[in-house]
Amino acid sequence: MTRQRIDINCDMGESFGAWEKGDDAAMLKIVSSANIACGFHAGDPDIMARTFALARERNVAVGAHPGFPDLMGFGRRQIPYSVGEIERLVAYQIGAAQAVSQYVGHPITHVKPHGALGNLAQHDEAVARAICNAIKAVDSSLICLAIALGQQHRIAEEMGLTVVSEIFADRAYTDEGILVPRGMKGAVIRDPDAAAWRVVEMVSEGAIVTVSGKRLETPMGSICVHGDAPEALAIAQAVRSGLEKQGFAIANFIH
Amino acid sequence: MTRQRIDINCDMGESFGAWEKGDDAAMLKIVSSANIACGFHAGDPDIMARTFALARERNVAVGAHPGFPDLMGFGRRQIPYSVGEIERLVAYQIGAAQAVSQYVGHPITHVKPHGALGNLAQHDEAVARAICNAIKAVDSSLICLAIALGQQHRIAEEMGLTVVSEIFADRAYTDEGILVPRGMKGAVIRDPDAAAWRVVEMVSEGAIVTVSGKRLETPMGSICVHGDAPEALAIAQAVRSGLEKQGFAIANFIH
Amino acid sequence: MTRQRIDINCDMGESFGAWEKGDDAAMLKIVSSANIACGFHAGDPDIMARTFALARERNVAVGAHPGFPDLMGFGRRQIPYSVGEIERLVAYQIGAAQAVSQYVGHPITHVKPHGALGNLAQHDEAVARAICNAIKAVDSSLICLAIALGQQHRIAEEMGLTVVSEIFADRAYTDEGILVPRGMKGAVIRDPDAAAWRVVEMVSEGAIVTVSGKRLETPMGSICVHGDAPEALAIAQAVRSGLEKQGFAIANFIH
Amino acid sequence: MTRQRIDINCDMGESFGAWEKGDDAAMLKIVSSANIACGFHAGDPDIMARTFALARERNVAVGAHPGFPDLMGFGRRQIPYSVGEIERLVAYQIGAAQAVSQYVGHPITHVKPHGALGNLAQHDEAVARAICNAIKAVDSSLICLAIALGQQHRIAEEMGLTVVSEIFADRAYTDEGILVPRGMKGAVIRDPDAAAWRVVEMVSEGAIVTVSGKRLETPMGSICVHGDAPEALAIAQAVRSGLEKQGFAIANFIH
Repeated sequence: MTRQRIDINCDMGESFGAWEKGDDAAMLKIVSSANIACGFHAGDPDIMARTFALARERNVAVGAHPGFPDLMGFGRRQIPYSVGEIERLVAYQIGAAQAVSQYVGHPITHVKPHGALGNLAQHDEAVARAICNAIKAVDSSLICLAIALGQQHRIAEEMGLTVVSEIFADRAYTDEGILVPRGMKGAVIRDPDAAAWRVVEMVSEGAIVTVSGKRLETPMGSICVHGDAPEALAIAQAVRSGLEKQGFAIANFIH
Repeated sequence: MTRQRIDINCDMGESFGAWEKGDDAAMLKIVSSANIACGFHAGDPDIMARTFALARERNVAVGAHPGFPDLMGFGRRQIPYSVGEIERLVAYQIGAAQAVSQYVGHPITHVKPHGALGNLAQHDEAVARAICNAIKAVDSSLICLAIALGQQHRIAEEMGLTVVSEIFADRAYTDEGILVPRGMKGAVIRDPDAAAWRVVEMVSEGAIVTVSGKRLETPMGSICVHGDAPEALAIAQAVRSGLEKQGFAIANFIH
Repeated sequence: MTRQRIDINCDMGESFGAWEKGDDAAMLKIVSSANIACGFHAGDPDIMARTFALARERNVAVGAHPGFPDLMGFGRRQIPYSVGEIERLVAYQIGAAQAVSQYVGHPITHVKPHGALGNLAQHDEAVARAICNAIKAVDSSLICLAIALGQQHRIAEEMGLTVVSEIFADRAYTDEGILVPRGMKGAVIRDPDAAAWRVVEMVSEGAIVTVSGKRLETPMGSICVHGDAPEALAIAQAVRSGLEKQGFAIANFIH
Repeated sequence: MTRQRIDINCDMGESFGAWEKGDDAAMLKIVSSANIACGFHAGDPDIMARTFALARERNVAVGAHPGFPDLMGFGRRQIPYSVGEIERLVAYQIGAAQAVSQYVGHPITHVKPHGALGNLAQHDEAVARAICNAIKAVDSSLICLAIALGQQHRIAEEMGLTVVSEIFADRAYTDEGILVPRGMKGAVIRDPDAAAWRVVEMVSEGAIVTVSGKRLETPMGSICVHGDAPEALAIAQAVRSGLEKQGFAIANFIH
């Protein structure tokens, strides 16, 4: 009997010059996919190459992780770009990631937008379409990794892209399937066991469990863990162990 | 009888945000190849897309024009990067140019390094090799457009890349085949007729004509004209007309 | 009998590295005050020094012209900064302008926010207050040059700063005293004579004349002319000549 | 009997946006002077304000710490700027630091160049003079904190600036009074006790002790400790305790 497969993904390569962020080497022993910053909100050609090479050693699948050109804000601020401009800046970053990943012999296989760009794509159909247009124009075989229940998932499917849905290990969901805003009580789950238990529950049921206990059915191909919190590695490890104990195989979504 | 073909190339897409540089639309009516800035010394994803699209309309071949990450110095300053770092930053820029050019339906077919990076590659074998390594790793079918008689031409050939040599329409050469430094008398040719006459002579003889009248034989597949001087369009037009009157066909070097 | 004095101001020093913008040398023969970009949306220490020195030669008063840190968008995009962050980034830029202007022996005497920051300050009391807080903390003797009838004028007065109101030579006003948005018909006045005639009318009446002919009384100490349109110099010259013919003396607002 | 006073200084405010560097809060409990990055190689207006405020709380004297505009290289790379350009970029940064430090009510009292700029100033008289020119033009009462036995110390004195010499707690010196290059054995002292012992010896003797045991007499008003190594806090604390045990009073050099 084959075990059900599920992916765990994490953002990486988010250092910049002399400034380091996250423990990529440790995280790469836990996850099965890595989203690599492309130099606009973090990273640079050298950090990208180093991170792609580390992922290759650990046999972790890699993707482009494009963001707004906003080093100071780490891509978390919504910079006013038109939909057309977003298309071009995503295409640019995918190409850069393709080239550098191929240079180290470990080509990217997916795309996941970062921070404010990812949030926009979840809620704004036009931005979601812009990102999908960029993927399609540059390499339509790239998988679109999208937030479950969001616009980007819907649009990517509609446009014929391969799309994988992700849920968050450490964030609470409203009954509308939206993340509880960070400022609110219970929005962020910091206890590794609680995070692991939640993820196992959601993956087993094939549904997001909301703050009120409601079930929102959704395809889910990947669990997103974060790399930059103090408890990041503990949560990621607990999620992986929890899933494995329940019989899931941690594996990237490339076939 | 087939006329001999020769290419004319020019750097383009060198605006930045609200700042414009060069009259790309006019120059694209004269040249057969365009080297497009990749966002590190000039350009951004939108300017790149717009310039690739203009070139497509005019049926002008396009290439990546990578430079040092130095907007303030326009890529003309030698920023201290290691050879390995140069490899990665060239790979990154080639990938970005591939993606954006493909996005507009007019994929790049060559690579030519910009400014201080191009000068380094002409004289420094290790830098020349780094650039060729990047081309080879990202797409070995891309043609390397290199300064005639320089290290990059030699290394590209040695590494099995397709390489095309260029000579400068508006610059005097020493007997060693090096450009006379800009500060010196006669270094820059500003008279369109003189530039045209010189180019016809060199292309006809298959040799660079130096300041002392010496002939330095070299393959030459392209004439480089500059886009940012006041007399730029007049020189480019004179060079084109001069070559055509002598029976040469202006055509890019893609077959 | 003393003639009534009125200032003409223009933004300057808005080149960046190899990219040039505006003909500052020509404009400095027309205006009496110059607002110098501080390196965040345009300019750099060298361009600032050069522009301050040019203004000194022409005996034109100078001010800091702080903007959002947004080279790519030339400070015209509203970048999401908190009010506190705006306070600090304005203080920083005022200090930089003070130092570089003192270095060339022509210290700044006023502050005028640029582009999106200036627009925000006109409409948003909290942003207006942040800019005034920065001025007050760094040098409370600096004059605040503010858009007539806007929040910044009101707040600056309330906070005890010296404030000078400006009206625009080339823009139409709604009955609410707001600029007619650029996209709309008649928003921008491109005819030098029309601009001059309008300015003379408004200065003579001490009131903004709106699109419907309504008069909005306001103190007005300066006329803002723009430097980056093709017709910029012609409009500035016509405005100056028109005012002088009516007996006004063009002079900066420093006493 | 008054104890002899000596200053301990450390670079600070070297975070950038979302990236943190150094434990400024902890280090401010140990040192008596802090050199604050000015936004060119690290820092931004908000980080500057926060660090100036922290220093104010701890009663630590503050200075501008200007560097090359090189975030990616953290100011450690020698970017090709002319001497005149260096003058302007130092003046700019001093002004920015003056304004932001005054904004938080804790004005700067000294200037110390960072990284590659500081190294250049130690060895290159023209660069040293450029930095002193900037200080003199902006505020000649600012103290120049210079590397002992270097050109900047000599030029600052010659130009009539108040100058304080610093020695390094954690670096070995050649017999020529130059730092042993980082790559070489013994160049960096990582043992807190060894560093403390060395510093006490040098301060007591009023001389740099070289690798061969030679004594190079020099005025020394400050000990430089570094903030970004893992052992940074331990070394800084050991140096302070060592000096205090020998009867020195740790106090900044402002009188």
